[in-house]
Amino acid sequence: MKKSCLLVAIACFAISAKASHIDSATVSRIYDEILEKGRVYENLHYLCKNIGPRLSGSTNAQKAVDWTKSLMESYAFDKVYLQEVMVPHWERGAKEKAYFKLNNKKQLVAVAALGGSVGAEMGIEAEVVEVYNFNQLKELGEEKLRGKIVFFNRPMNPKAIRTFNAYGEAVNQRVQGATEAAKYGAIGVVVRSMTTRIDEFPHTGSLRYDQSITQIPAVAIATKDANLLSSAIKAQPTTRFYMKLNCKTLPDVVSYNVIGEIKGSERPEQIITVGGHLDSWDLAEGAHDDGAGTMQSVEVLRTLKSLGIKPKHTIRVVLFMNEENGLRGGLKYAENAKLTGEQHLAAIESDSGGLTPRGFSMDASAAIVEKVLLWKPVFDGFELNEIGGGGGSGADIGPLKPLGTALFGFRPDSQRYFDFHHAANDVFENVNERELKLGAAAMTLLVYLIDQNGLN
Amino acid sequence: MKKSCLLVAIACFAISAKASHIDSATVSRIYDEILEKGRVYENLHYLCKNIGPRLSGSTNAQKAVDWTKSLMESYAFDKVYLQEVMVPHWERGAKEKAYFKLNNKKQLVAVAALGGSVGAEMGIEAEVVEVYNFNQLKELGEEKLRGKIVFFNRPMNPKAIRTFNAYGEAVNQRVQGATEAAKYGAIGVVVRSMTTRIDEFPHTGSLRYDQSITQIPAVAIATKDANLLSSAIKAQPTTRFYMKLNCKTLPDVVSYNVIGEIKGSERPEQIITVGGHLDSWDLAEGAHDDGAGTMQSVEVLRTLKSLGIKPKHTIRVVLFMNEENGLRGGLKYAENAKLTGEQHLAAIESDSGGLTPRGFSMDASAAIVEKVLLWKPVFDGFELNEIGGGGGSGADIGPLKPLGTALFGFRPDSQRYFDFHHAANDVFENVNERELKLGAAAMTLLVYLIDQNGLN
Repeated sequence: MKKSCLLVAIACFAISAKASHIDSATVSRIYDEILEKGRVYENLHYLCKNIGPRLSGSTNAQKAVDWTKSLMESYAFDKVYLQEVMVPHWERGAKEKAYFKLNNKKQLVAVAALGGSVGAEMGIEAEVVEVYNFNQLKELGEEKLRGKIVFFNRPMNPKAIRTFNAYGEAVNQRVQGATEAAKYGAIGVVVRSMTTRIDEFPHTGSLRYDQSITQIPAVAIATKDANLLSSAIKAQPTTRFYMKLNCKTLPDVVSYNVIGEIKGSERPEQIITVGGHLDSWDLAEGAHDDGAGTMQSVEVLRTLKSLGIKPKHTIRVVLFMNEENGLRGGLKYAENAKLTGEQHLAAIESDSGGLTPRGFSMDASAAIVEKVLLWKPVFDGFELNEIGGGGGSGADIGPLKPLGTALFGFRPDSQRYFDFHHAANDVFENVNERELKLGAAAMTLLVYLIDQNGLN
Repeated sequence: MKKSCLLVAIACFAISAKASHIDSATVSRIYDEILEKGRVYENLHYLCKNIGPRLSGSTNAQKAVDWTKSLMESYAFDKVYLQEVMVPHWERGAKEKAYFKLNNKKQLVAVAALGGSVGAEMGIEAEVVEVYNFNQLKELGEEKLRGKIVFFNRPMNPKAIRTFNAYGEAVNQRVQGATEAAKYGAIGVVVRSMTTRIDEFPHTGSLRYDQSITQIPAVAIATKDANLLSSAIKAQPTTRFYMKLNCKTLPDVVSYNVIGEIKGSERPEQIITVGGHLDSWDLAEGAHDDGAGTMQSVEVLRTLKSLGIKPKHTIRVVLFMNEENGLRGGLKYAENAKLTGEQHLAAIESDSGGLTPRGFSMDASAAIVEKVLLWKPVFDGFELNEIGGGGGSGADIGPLKPLGTALFGFRPDSQRYFDFHHAANDVFENVNERELKLGAAAMTLLVYLIDQNGLN
């Protein structure tokens, strides 16, 4: 029985693989090209070291737009162009200062304003109240929170196998913490950094204000200092916290999605999009988030072109602007697609780091998921074992869903991602060349299989 | 048809999983314990920073024996003891010096004597001949090789998906290079380091002499310098190479395998061994190779004990001595097992680095492989997707095969392993806490499933 089961399964996979047209020689050439002559690692080095941080609206973001456009032009894609989009322009200003007072001794702590936070240029100081969730705010109420600084210290759950699940369970403190605390009269918010490591890096990220609620300043604090602060509060419940933030939001500015295309030979009107986001936070080089995904996406088209593979559908690389603090690029791209009636067969995003590939998540119909699963034997050969529905896709391509586009998220191993996420150590040196290249190869493979076999 | 196939497969897996007795609550407790309260990371820190390099026969190797024994005793395993074994005692001596001469300018290069190499205390200098394989030696012949230094420069193949396959294809240069070159009268050997990275670290490793052939000195050269040397030879075929090695082999010394046990409650006479090797090369801390595997193996028993899990079979952790340059510990362990008629049900080795888990390779009968595959749904839940026959197991447990023991190799992701392998950067800082812990949890899971379900 057991044996027969396995045999059935194996046989089925074999038949299925045959059923779809897979040219294994071309598949090998794709991997060989990228692993042996790939440019993704050198390109990421340029983006990180010659341009660096590239927050929406910054001069560096514009430099990144100009350079990636010229990079695509140097590869002679059939079409390279910019798609205009208005983006938010938030600036951190001079480095933040923060400390807590224990027995009248100032203990400096490492903090970074959350993206979009209002400033506190004159500095604010108040008693600090530690909480783990929004229910506790309700229990404490205005009486105990008015005029105070709220410290959200719920850690990412170390027991989650995929770190993104732990992130999803903890990140509401960062996104809505300031608004929730302000409802009870708090004057500022300190949020434990979103990482399972105990380190000295504040991990920033965006917050969301509710226009009907007072906007109060909010910072991320390094986990090591979060632990210090927590013990201080336990030792002395009246511990006071000081923070000075020099950030401000300026008027929106013009920016761009950077787009390159290889025209389809049989179904040019049907588009397969592959992309990542070009903007990054301002604290580091945005090597993993998302320099890796953008350079991998460019590599997909470079590889098809350099191997002389003529795709049936139009393959389009899109470097989205403003994923981190607005998603304006992704929204504009889908809006334009709808307006112009473009047909988007599939979209693939890489925005989970340049780490060793595990597979792809899918946000598509059961029929499409089933069809893609027929290629599993091919994926398995490259250690892409996690192919399945669920797990979403990517923020920038999400808005394409109403157009009936099949969405795919490149899924690298998640264990190290939050060591660097939105922090000063998200630099080129923390990206491994083979892991980055294998990710680009996996994405090219998926694009190739979809292009050759379609999804219907 | 396609759908029915998948359904059949899924149904079968479900039935199979039921068929074997898997207590999912206990499985979760194993992962939670290690991820939340695990000691493996702190223990590896101690081994790396308080003891450090621990080459067979060295004082540090003895310190590692003493400390790991006391560590196991502190966990109150049912039995903790040492198994005596004579090991080789090779010493590097003072740091090597090497350079090549280009236009009479000395270009210093980073080299490290291969383990077991004879010394060259007075230094040797000769014309250097670059080759890529042993056939080229044959073609060049004694006429072109006598009195020369041979430079083996065949790189690890970057196109291999698993780096261990590339290592397997290239490592004969390091292991047999000196003997093969000596057959044609060469007086020394320089071997390109076994890594796909271009860096400044010589990666050492053992060589094997043939007693009937002259023993000539051999060094590993950093890949960056290997490329320099190669271009120099192309520019000037008469380029000369100088190397001075202060290494020597001393008489064998007494050392030990360190062993701990939890006695089985139902089949105490049947043993499940889990282990790694305690010795390391002398250039670094041996964090990945194999501090990780030893501390993970100890963690398996610590976890079972701290969760109050009473195994049916006897679970034994073995920290093998001398894997790197002799395998004496592994041979002694199997030899003793045979002499005393021990029954070894299964053995699991972790010696591929403390990196993110991928699964397990198996060297066992088809029936056992089939049985273990029934647990695939459990493994998949923890991203252990690569469970299968082939791929060998581990050097230290290999000698148990003639006893009919089912052999398992813990298989972490291989992409970063050779960045550190046998080089000065194999240090604690290059081990990720979550990756290390997940490896220990995966090993504990496999031991638990084998113990609960047996293998017949």
